[in-house]
Amino acid sequence: MKEAIKIGLLGSGTVGSGVVRVLRENMEEITARVGTRLVLAKVLVRDVKKPRPYLEGVELTDRVEDILEDDEISIVVEVMGGIKPAKDYMLRALAAGKNVVTANKDVVAQYGHELFDMAEAHDADFRFEASVGGGIPIIMPLKQCLTANRITEIMGIVNGTTNYMLTKMSECGASYDDVLKEAQEKGYAEANPSADVDGLDAARKAAILSSIAFNTRISLDDVSVEGITKITPDDIAYAKNLGYVVKLLAIGKETDEGINVRVHPVFLPEEHPLASVNGVFNAIFVRGNAVGEAMFYGPGAGSLPTASAVVADIIDVARDIVNHSFGRVNCTCYRKKVLCPIEKTRSSYYVRLLVEDKPGVLGAIATAFGNADVSLQSVIQTQRDKKEHAEIVAITHCVPHANILTALDVLNALPVVSEVRNLIRVENDRG
Amino acid sequence: MKEAIKIGLLGSGTVGSGVVRVLRENMEEITARVGTRLVLAKVLVRDVKKPRPYLEGVELTDRVEDILEDDEISIVVEVMGGIKPAKDYMLRALAAGKNVVTANKDVVAQYGHELFDMAEAHDADFRFEASVGGGIPIIMPLKQCLTANRITEIMGIVNGTTNYMLTKMSECGASYDDVLKEAQEKGYAEANPSADVDGLDAARKAAILSSIAFNTRISLDDVSVEGITKITPDDIAYAKNLGYVVKLLAIGKETDEGINVRVHPVFLPEEHPLASVNGVFNAIFVRGNAVGEAMFYGPGAGSLPTASAVVADIIDVARDIVNHSFGRVNCTCYRKKVLCPIEKTRSSYYVRLLVEDKPGVLGAIATAFGNADVSLQSVIQTQRDKKEHAEIVAITHCVPHANILTALDVLNALPVVSEVRNLIRVENDRG
Ligand SMILES: NC(=O)c1ccc[n+]([C@@H]2O[C@H](COP(=O)([O-])OP(=O)(O)OC[C@H]3O[C@@H](n4cnc5c(N)ncnc54)[C@H](OP(=O)(O)O)[C@@H]3O)[C@@H](O)[C@H]2O)c1
Ligand SMILES: NC(=O)c1ccc[n+]([C@@H]2O[C@H](COP(=O)([O-])OP(=O)(O)OC[C@H]3O[C@@H](n4cnc5c(N)ncnc54)[C@H](OP(=O)(O)O)[C@@H]3O)[C@@H](O)[C@H]2O)c1
Repeated sequence: MKEAIKIGLLGSGTVGSGVVRVLRENMEEITARVGTRLVLAKVLVRDVKKPRPYLEGVELTDRVEDILEDDEISIVVEVMGGIKPAKDYMLRALAAGKNVVTANKDVVAQYGHELFDMAEAHDADFRFEASVGGGIPIIMPLKQCLTANRITEIMGIVNGTTNYMLTKMSECGASYDDVLKEAQEKGYAEANPSADVDGLDAARKAAILSSIAFNTRISLDDVSVEGITKITPDDIAYAKNLGYVVKLLAIGKETDEGINVRVHPVFLPEEHPLASVNGVFNAIFVRGNAVGEAMFYGPGAGSLPTASAVVADIIDVARDIVNHSFGRVNCTCYRKKVLCPIEKTRSSYYVRLLVEDKPGVLGAIATAFGNADVSLQSVIQTQRDKKEHAEIVAITHCVPHANILTALDVLNALPVVSEVRNLIRVENDRG
Repeated sequence: MKEAIKIGLLGSGTVGSGVVRVLRENMEEITARVGTRLVLAKVLVRDVKKPRPYLEGVELTDRVEDILEDDEISIVVEVMGGIKPAKDYMLRALAAGKNVVTANKDVVAQYGHELFDMAEAHDADFRFEASVGGGIPIIMPLKQCLTANRITEIMGIVNGTTNYMLTKMSECGASYDDVLKEAQEKGYAEANPSADVDGLDAARKAAILSSIAFNTRISLDDVSVEGITKITPDDIAYAKNLGYVVKLLAIGKETDEGINVRVHPVFLPEEHPLASVNGVFNAIFVRGNAVGEAMFYGPGAGSLPTASAVVADIIDVARDIVNHSFGRVNCTCYRKKVLCPIEKTRSSYYVRLLVEDKPGVLGAIATAFGNADVSLQSVIQTQRDKKEHAEIVAITHCVPHANILTALDVLNALPVVSEVRNLIRVENDRG
């Protein structure tokens, strides 16, 4: 058996303490699996005096140099979060020839290429399985298990907070504000929930997943983003009636027009494998030209689940150390593909309108859609409001986004239309 | 770029022709991903004269030596099926220092250890991702992505034929015989369906999955097996009423009593992630002490999906060739764990009895269960048959299998019990 492999941990919050626990509790198995002992040598903390019973026996430091300049440490695990100084520390670790494992979606989504370049230059591993889908294996499955495929589509429920909220809204007809409050009380949503409900967190993951699926660098700025704040119980009720559930999806598709990557709420057919993924669970659905469809399901966050992914990366790096096979699978963005502008993306749409309740309105609306080159799959007038108003719900055929924008302009200009209440994409093109 | 890596293919039926197609169609991407060109050098067929347009330009042979003795071939792909001569060919390929990729669950479930030993002795790779779950990535995820976990449970829908049949029975209340006939007409079931409906195919996969999950060699003989032939529309209707679906599962569990591996029908709660896996799709659910629960879903069979897994293995082996990292992850059965005899396994049970319809019967039945140390969760008397008969459906608490066998003996001896109509395990211990 080789000498022990030494690990330096940067940060010991939710994920970091999980990593410590998993390494401790499963050390016997892990040693047998790697063929070498892994040792947690040093942990970077902000305050070395703060009592941390779970770190007993481990050297604490508040100077990152103690880790980055320690020649015996070969794996640096970054679980501090944020861009600064995490990115800088990782670059320095790689430059020093150390292998880096991180859970940091912020850095990977925005600066992944810098880290990969540095890893390649120094023949080191850079791993980030935990950055998407928490404990769900998805990065390695994409890079290795599905690598015989040309992937054409990847769609994920990658934010537990919003999935919990939408699930609750769907189960009890509760309002957005009520479920947000409940999610905050349960610790599923932050006091400032913006990164989750506005879709930014999902957008980072969309960028990471798409970069790998399509072998071309997609950065956060390339992702078009829309959150769930406009979803009402009415939308969810209409969805149910029509055989759909509402989910916030991170979507990447490769079409003849290029790659398009986006985050937005979606009407998903009840039979879709992602439709029954509820609560804080996450899942990623992949379509490839050989496998057809596959899905990966599990806990998208949490101390131990996320540590499961981080420690798997550590073990894989350790296997590379044992076998001298660094960089066996690093950056897979070997192409430069064009992006498809959002206006050219195609989808079916659900459009909900508040209109005057008088004869001929339905005809006028249908004509307006037609004039914008949007053909309709169905249109129903329902739910009479008080005061001479009615709601119209239209489901369109698959049309370019530009057409639907034109249609909305035309509809808004119609005197009978009081309000466009919502516009949500409908995912219909399965199988 | 290195010289091309040469592949020899043994067999070109359903899976073999899929492998040829995937290698052809995705060759440009595959070359970019490996960094080296893969070349299909030779294909072993029984009849070299049979026209095979999709193999144009490839050398055909009916002598396996042409492949096994060709020093330029470094990867042998076995997709002939069956034990003989497939196992022998694979052993000879490994002995010649070649890497072997196979989809052959028969050989892996029964002789996996021999192949691993040979691979290790000759510093070669032995891969079999396609042997379980067709296109679903599950072997590598277990060996690598979830390797930070102690896995306590693995449950899979791993036979598409039976899952299709149970789904149909559940959707339309059809009888076993009718759905079998339909499955045969659609090509989902063989003329002799025994391997599928009696659970043997699933048992092979249960052995393979459990060996990896628990790091101990489980062979086909260690698996206790029961098929779906006794499932009736009545059982499925009762299940539905009680909030369950009926699925044929391959199950491996590690308990204090040891490892138990079995295949049998199960009442699965509707909310279980496996419960919504329908038709010919497969899925494998895993519980680990860090990740909690994870699930892998996709097509369990078919030419291209299965080829997706085979070619992924080929690519991974090619990466090992490029990096000289053979055997980086080979046999993971580094323990010898005791097996738990089936009598000691514990479960809840659904018991359906045909009884005389007279006062006091329910009490007599409940007492009989109690005398066998089986406590009941619920017991209902329903569905009055013609001729003074009624049915009683009991759901037990979690009890050792031995107790339920005793209970059946006692029940069978009761004069009021005309027939024990079915006994099916209920999976209740989630979360
Ligand atoms: N939580 C999850 O479920 C989850 C899931 C997937 C991915 N992730 C990712 O994992 C990373 C960590 O998340 P987390 O939930 O563990 O966050 P956290 O609980 O806030 O932990 C971060 C830890 O890093 C420490 N830290 C921050 N800056 C530091 C510095 N300059 N020097 C020393 N220590 C520093 C913090 O120390 P103080 O306590 O002194 O501030 C804290 O202990 C993030 O990138 C996150 O996106 C988290
Ligand atoms: N089909 C699936 O969806 C699937 C999924 C997962 C795993 N698998 C596994 O993949 C393997 C292949 O399955 P398959 O469905 O592709 O079977 P298949 O369609 O019957 O193909 C087997 C091929 O091997 C050839 N062959 C058999 N023995 C041979 C010999 N001694 N010399 C030369 N050629 C020989 C057969 O040739 P002839 O045509 O001349 O008989 C046939 O072309 C099996 O182990 C199976 O369990 C299959």
